[in-house]
Amino acid sequence: MSNASVERLEAKSREITWLAHILAVLGYDQETMMPSKGAPERGEQMAVISGLLHDRVVDPGLGKLVEELWAKRDSLSPEAQANVRELRRSHLRSRKVPKELVEEIARTQPLAHEAWIKARKASDFASFAPWLEKMFDLKRREADAIGFEADRYDALLDQYEPGMTVARLNPLFEQLRKDLVPIVHAIAAAPRRPDESLLTRRVPQEQQVALCLGLARSMGFDTEGGRMDVSTHPFCSTLGSGDVRITNRYNEGEPLASFFGVMHETGHALYEQGIDPANHGLPMGEAVSLGIHESQSRTWENMVGRGRPFWKHFYPTLQKAWSPAYDGVDPEAFYFAVNTVRPSMIRVEADEVTYNLHILVRYEIERDLFAGRLAVKDLPSAWNGRMKEYLGIKPKNDAEGVLQDIHWSSGLIGYFPTYTLGNLYGAQIFDAVRRQIPDLDARIGRGDLETLREWLREKVHRHGMRWLPADLVREVTGQEPDASYYMRYLREKFGPLYGIQA
Amino acid sequence: MSNASVERLEAKSREITWLAHILAVLGYDQETMMPSKGAPERGEQMAVISGLLHDRVVDPGLGKLVEELWAKRDSLSPEAQANVRELRRSHLRSRKVPKELVEEIARTQPLAHEAWIKARKASDFASFAPWLEKMFDLKRREADAIGFEADRYDALLDQYEPGMTVARLNPLFEQLRKDLVPIVHAIAAAPRRPDESLLTRRVPQEQQVALCLGLARSMGFDTEGGRMDVSTHPFCSTLGSGDVRITNRYNEGEPLASFFGVMHETGHALYEQGIDPANHGLPMGEAVSLGIHESQSRTWENMVGRGRPFWKHFYPTLQKAWSPAYDGVDPEAFYFAVNTVRPSMIRVEADEVTYNLHILVRYEIERDLFAGRLAVKDLPSAWNGRMKEYLGIKPKNDAEGVLQDIHWSSGLIGYFPTYTLGNLYGAQIFDAVRRQIPDLDARIGRGDLETLREWLREKVHRHGMRWLPADLVREVTGQEPDASYYMRYLREKFGPLYGIQA
Repeated sequence: MSNASVERLEAKSREITWLAHILAVLGYDQETMMPSKGAPERGEQMAVISGLLHDRVVDPGLGKLVEELWAKRDSLSPEAQANVRELRRSHLRSRKVPKELVEEIARTQPLAHEAWIKARKASDFASFAPWLEKMFDLKRREADAIGFEADRYDALLDQYEPGMTVARLNPLFEQLRKDLVPIVHAIAAAPRRPDESLLTRRVPQEQQVALCLGLARSMGFDTEGGRMDVSTHPFCSTLGSGDVRITNRYNEGEPLASFFGVMHETGHALYEQGIDPANHGLPMGEAVSLGIHESQSRTWENMVGRGRPFWKHFYPTLQKAWSPAYDGVDPEAFYFAVNTVRPSMIRVEADEVTYNLHILVRYEIERDLFAGRLAVKDLPSAWNGRMKEYLGIKPKNDAEGVLQDIHWSSGLIGYFPTYTLGNLYGAQIFDAVRRQIPDLDARIGRGDLETLREWLREKVHRHGMRWLPADLVREVTGQEPDASYYMRYLREKFGPLYGIQA
Repeated sequence: MSNASVERLEAKSREITWLAHILAVLGYDQETMMPSKGAPERGEQMAVISGLLHDRVVDPGLGKLVEELWAKRDSLSPEAQANVRELRRSHLRSRKVPKELVEEIARTQPLAHEAWIKARKASDFASFAPWLEKMFDLKRREADAIGFEADRYDALLDQYEPGMTVARLNPLFEQLRKDLVPIVHAIAAAPRRPDESLLTRRVPQEQQVALCLGLARSMGFDTEGGRMDVSTHPFCSTLGSGDVRITNRYNEGEPLASFFGVMHETGHALYEQGIDPANHGLPMGEAVSLGIHESQSRTWENMVGRGRPFWKHFYPTLQKAWSPAYDGVDPEAFYFAVNTVRPSMIRVEADEVTYNLHILVRYEIERDLFAGRLAVKDLPSAWNGRMKEYLGIKPKNDAEGVLQDIHWSSGLIGYFPTYTLGNLYGAQIFDAVRRQIPDLDARIGRGDLETLREWLREKVHRHGMRWLPADLVREVTGQEPDASYYMRYLREKFGPLYGIQA
């Protein structure tokens, strides 16, 4: 095999990556720093880079190179094979979508987004409906251009979770629905309830920021290769090798929100910082999927951060850092409070038991809408009916119902399922860690977060795109992806806590 | 004249501008936000954008268009003419420099820069000498490629100060030297001296930041179209239309440094924010030269900020904001202290009387070195001899002498003179404002900074690149650029202050 071809491909891959990271710098600055009047030109700047990026991904020279190398892939190292596989996949995918369609979607996004903001503000679904119609139509055309085997939805899903299909998702989600709905109803009727007022004690922002940064560092976030800032919605973004940024938001009357926010984003950041630096600029140097990414953030936020061992060590630290807010508060009462389960309208504020039912509502509606089995005008009633059935509550209006999420207005269709996949993967991987490190809880209880982090780095993070997501889960856990680990985790934790038969 | 050609040219100009602004975003983030490990890839990202920018500037399609429009310039509006003139100028200039030379200079810069950092640290001129030799040699080749009429140095000077030449600079600087040296010597022997200890009172950083931001706002800095951050060296950068950023640095033991730093950078920012937004993305939407830019920053920093009328209004504000540091300090003693004149080694810390002698030292040496009349090995003695002659002091070592500035290591040759041109232009323009608004001092003394700002906006800022710098000075003041305004300003201010015959 010609080394020269591999090197040429790697050079092309790096230029694509640098452009993608430049886009991330522009986006990060926009969210954290940019003054408001900078917005219009920033949009132009991002369009210039997006165009250059697209040109390079669909470049026929790249196409020729990946086909040449793909034909001889057996002679390549496993790493080079993975790089060729992924570059070929994104090239073929992007090349199939006509430039006119890419541009029409790009032009529609900001308009649909603006319409969504207005519609949500006024709780006026009808004004957003035409945009939703248009966006779903454009995305159907995109899916048709890309092509699919069984289900048109697969063409979109695949870009966020390579290899995932409706045929694999449906049984997972169906099982989850059957298992989760009774637990949610049982908890709603449980004899024991946490003191939720503990979640709304006042902690000044500086105290929150200091603890959050300390927490991120104690989880292993490398601040020489990253930083933490403030934005409207928390996120994690990679601006370059050695440059992984997280953001958080602070509400002085809701301090635990920033605490779990930073654990979540640091979970993402540890994944990014844990990828083998030798592969920077190549697919092997990138996270494999949104689902695997979310598995890391949710593992830290929920399985670690809402677990008893963690608080055994960390509660005194928090009491001291946030004094006097939690002075004298019983540890067990605090632990119960951070595990409050209560059906609620807003997904991003949902607890870990009800969360996946929020995703289920969206997935079922999105899938049916995309397939033409559901009309846009019937969306609010489909939404409200499912919320009632799954969570036992009904939105007062569309603003806290079908209009709450940004995704559809941005053309992010096929994206929601990755949140639930993240929870399922996370539980399955965490189960594997526990089997391999039997004293993990005791270690976490002593404040040792390094053991878990290094295990995840070694087994998951450093491999980048070596395997497709489902193959990674199989490599790490020895099992096919399966929802039962997640359900067992919930039952074992929330059954005793709420005194119910889960 | 075909409107279509003008529109095509404008579209090309905008793409070039957006790329230049993207480079500014990457640079700004690097200076203010980026974690240290992000540096290597950031260099790659900036190289990618620099390459794209260069390709677009030398694009033969652009060349054809500017020649077509230049041939018919008489049929164009004055604005379109200026745009064609400037795009043609940068195209022809860039096209003449062979790509190999551009790349060699780009490759040499970081190495020379690193060598300079080490050499300055160790005060070891000999280790930097070969890099200086190489950089000057490369820049000579660049100047030869660009071409010039009278002096090779003109080819470099012209890119920072369009239209400026050695033939015009030499008499200006010669006159300045003759006038300044005796004043500096007279002040050194003056009967009155300020209490310099007033400059080093301790003010906590938060108090400094709050006053600096308030000061920038009261000067008219639009924080919806800009922001203020912290960096190692203060600067002003335009990241997009509606996005002008300034930085500052804070030393708790030297609070006035941040105060005058922010006045200086806000002076630059007001220029950028004052350009007619209708021309964003076009040469007409850009500042005309470094010299004119510096005239704005130095006008605000020195002619306003170190003037009596300003402190009449602003001193009580500072006393309150920085209490208790200046409680009870006599206003006249404070005013005298901020006008301390004392020959010193470091240019960036020099007062407004000695500053231009620092530039003179650099200009004379740079010009002679570039022309081959001075050898690199003789640089330290040439430097030290001139410092002694002009300022009456001699550097202890090369670190505080010939090695102090970054410019030569970065290939910025022909740049230093623009600092002095800025002082000269500023004084000449300020003289014109005073003649047109006779009660300007009284207005500033009442805290009215708006009158001056709006005058500068109307006469200077909004015009962008409409005229070449010298033509702009003539338009605004009715006179040729002339050093006598600056000298008169210094004599009238510092003569009485130090009790000397200036």
